[in-house]
Amino acid sequence: MRDIDASYERYKAILAEAIAIESVSGDLRRRSETVKMVHWTKEKLEKLGVQCSLEDLGTQIVDGKEIALPPVLFGQLGDEKNKKTLLVYDVQPAAKADGWYTEPFTLTEIDNKLFGRGATDDKGPVLCWIHAIEMLQKHSINIPVNIKFCFEAMEESGSIGLEKLLQKNKTKFLANIDFTCISDSYWLGTTKPCLTYGLRGICSFKVEVTGIQQDLHSGVYGGVVYEPLADLLWVMSQLTSVDNRILIPGIYHDVAPMTNVESDLYDKIDFDINEFRKSIGAKKLLTEDKKTLLMRRWREPCLSFHGIEGAFSGNGEKTVIPSKVIGKFSIRIVPNMMPEKVNRIVIDFLNELWKKRGSPNTFTPHLGHDALPWVTDTNESNFKAGARAMKLVHGVDPDYIREGCSIPITLTFQELTGRSVLLLPLGAADDMAHSQNEKFNKVNYTNGVKTLLAYLIELGNV
Amino acid sequence: MRDIDASYERYKAILAEAIAIESVSGDLRRRSETVKMVHWTKEKLEKLGVQCSLEDLGTQIVDGKEIALPPVLFGQLGDEKNKKTLLVYDVQPAAKADGWYTEPFTLTEIDNKLFGRGATDDKGPVLCWIHAIEMLQKHSINIPVNIKFCFEAMEESGSIGLEKLLQKNKTKFLANIDFTCISDSYWLGTTKPCLTYGLRGICSFKVEVTGIQQDLHSGVYGGVVYEPLADLLWVMSQLTSVDNRILIPGIYHDVAPMTNVESDLYDKIDFDINEFRKSIGAKKLLTEDKKTLLMRRWREPCLSFHGIEGAFSGNGEKTVIPSKVIGKFSIRIVPNMMPEKVNRIVIDFLNELWKKRGSPNTFTPHLGHDALPWVTDTNESNFKAGARAMKLVHGVDPDYIREGCSIPITLTFQELTGRSVLLLPLGAADDMAHSQNEKFNKVNYTNGVKTLLAYLIELGNV
Repeated sequence: MRDIDASYERYKAILAEAIAIESVSGDLRRRSETVKMVHWTKEKLEKLGVQCSLEDLGTQIVDGKEIALPPVLFGQLGDEKNKKTLLVYDVQPAAKADGWYTEPFTLTEIDNKLFGRGATDDKGPVLCWIHAIEMLQKHSINIPVNIKFCFEAMEESGSIGLEKLLQKNKTKFLANIDFTCISDSYWLGTTKPCLTYGLRGICSFKVEVTGIQQDLHSGVYGGVVYEPLADLLWVMSQLTSVDNRILIPGIYHDVAPMTNVESDLYDKIDFDINEFRKSIGAKKLLTEDKKTLLMRRWREPCLSFHGIEGAFSGNGEKTVIPSKVIGKFSIRIVPNMMPEKVNRIVIDFLNELWKKRGSPNTFTPHLGHDALPWVTDTNESNFKAGARAMKLVHGVDPDYIREGCSIPITLTFQELTGRSVLLLPLGAADDMAHSQNEKFNKVNYTNGVKTLLAYLIELGNV
Repeated sequence: MRDIDASYERYKAILAEAIAIESVSGDLRRRSETVKMVHWTKEKLEKLGVQCSLEDLGTQIVDGKEIALPPVLFGQLGDEKNKKTLLVYDVQPAAKADGWYTEPFTLTEIDNKLFGRGATDDKGPVLCWIHAIEMLQKHSINIPVNIKFCFEAMEESGSIGLEKLLQKNKTKFLANIDFTCISDSYWLGTTKPCLTYGLRGICSFKVEVTGIQQDLHSGVYGGVVYEPLADLLWVMSQLTSVDNRILIPGIYHDVAPMTNVESDLYDKIDFDINEFRKSIGAKKLLTEDKKTLLMRRWREPCLSFHGIEGAFSGNGEKTVIPSKVIGKFSIRIVPNMMPEKVNRIVIDFLNELWKKRGSPNTFTPHLGHDALPWVTDTNESNFKAGARAMKLVHGVDPDYIREGCSIPITLTFQELTGRSVLLLPLGAADDMAHSQNEKFNKVNYTNGVKTLLAYLIELGNV
């Protein structure tokens, strides 16, 4: 383990290389960088003796143009009959954001924090796997499991085509998987390690209002047209209360009741609500109670507004009456809510609101993507191995937590392999994945390598 | 006049040259094109014997960078003591918009309509002045007035610096002006000519809500933070009713009462409400009554929402909780509303709404630009000359109309010269200035040249 600490500068240099590849999956102009990232990772794996293949995902249609998707990287290390097989799933590039203090694509170390786009989501954790295996090989330590890799580049952009590819591989690449491990989530705080046993799902919506043929000058036409944006603002304003309760009737109906076992897990969790509040720079949160706050993040639905397409969104002023506006919002769903039912009651409520509004404009609610929530049993051997690894590295038992976000692929792997999926987070809560100033702590990086190394060994004891 | 019709193809070629210059004042990357447009116009005027000078407007600060403003073009044709002096003010480039059927910067004639960005606002009308003077010179007809020109390039971007330049020139370039003519407005319909005697003013507002330090992932944080965008949507939704009435107490208080003389003007106006509705592709308007509709456009205030800065505005989905959002809206004001008072009651009401909302987020209403409304006496000799010119060309008396939009410079010229300002529109109502598919009709182009020529002659008879 000391050799891992000693390798930090080398690890950092390799992460810097990965960060410098501007693989932003949602940015078509950077598609070649995203493909480059896949190839870069393939080379690293091959140096470890991993048998790699690139799986074609076909194309996607963007703005009427057909664009090739970056390939998925499959890899296999070891194929011994007497060993169980671990599947490692991870993602490579991440979204973009403005407002960075440092160059997003230049890894910058400040106060033992490594800043860079993708540092924690998920280039850092991917490298932790690579470093861990390399370290075991260097010290000639037998890896007690066969390892398969599935690394994809488009997770942040909906993992288009991946599910189909995995379905096709149910009896091929995904045959005989005993465990799956995903390191694409985060600790609850900044110091204590966690294992994740649940995720929220999501239902996304787009609400379109139109009524005039094209954008109009507000001076010339203001006062005589029913403004689509005014209608949209009103409809959206009717969906939540100031304290973020969803005002759609029936939406809370299917939320699973709390069991005593589950309630106990919440009581044990180490979580500093003030530190959390400060980490996001909020003056006040919707609750000051730890347990209530965690429940609201993990086991209760919520509705968030994302923005409006078609209205003026630039800096400065523009006296326009937008002709067609599309409001975007999503609802995080939890067990036992089902997307089909949520979609139906939301669309029904939107249509009811529209009737109440009484505008002659044209109103069209659209369904966006949706994903089921996921929750699993923390007593599975996969979880136990992860817990022992974390205790070994950190000296404490990990907390059992859930995540508020959705990683739909988790459920896909669980269903296709019929085995337990472990979410083993390596990054800290304040790593700011998806946001400005994303970082991966130096200590999380080296402890991440140690944890994955220990986890691989522990899987041999299952 | 027949020679004007015969010159159409040549006029069109010159307009095509002007349209090809991508002078978009709000687009900094095209700033050099905007400057090029000023020089192009200067050359055209100098060929007519106009003494030109370029007046420096200094610089503007955009995103922290200091950028030189395009110069204002001053020109003078004739300086005879026994002649009165006309000031012609016009603007050159216009805003940008997506969704064109033709190339915006390539003049395209379809069904006797000349499509192109700036065709009607205001490159076409500027050329009408040039063609009219050229025609008078060609036929050796004495121009009975001295003409001064003030052509600027930044009207669509707030005419930064222009007012200061004009103030400085009150006793210089603007001394001894007898009439001012501005052709930067539009007919009420598509066939009958108009003279414009009033304009609405404007008060613009920005409402900023923030409460978290940076954009957050809605999965991880949704349900525990007070979302700034939810607050903003609610505040904005409280400002108008579905039928576009402003819900801010006192806002209608200072609207000038209707006089009988004014009421009569409305009765006479030729206006097809159905044609108007169809021209903007609206299913239904806020009123089906001609007079009410015109009054709502010209002599009543209205509130329009323009958009939101800081939220997700792109295509597709993005599960973000925006950290800082700025809502943009403006109120068109009419006599006798004063911007100071409107600004005060709007900000007061916004603050009251915020108290009612009860959110711990930070709310900051900002004042944007404002402009006084303008209304003038249609019995002035300047108006009479314009009316006679229009009758001569079109065979009918023009309607006396107002405009719903703001041209603040109108008031500046009226105040600095102490004389009447005439708004003499040349374009048709459906020309779609500021919008997609802007065009200038062939017949408006040639009749525009004739009208300005006749107007110059008529001014000699005042």
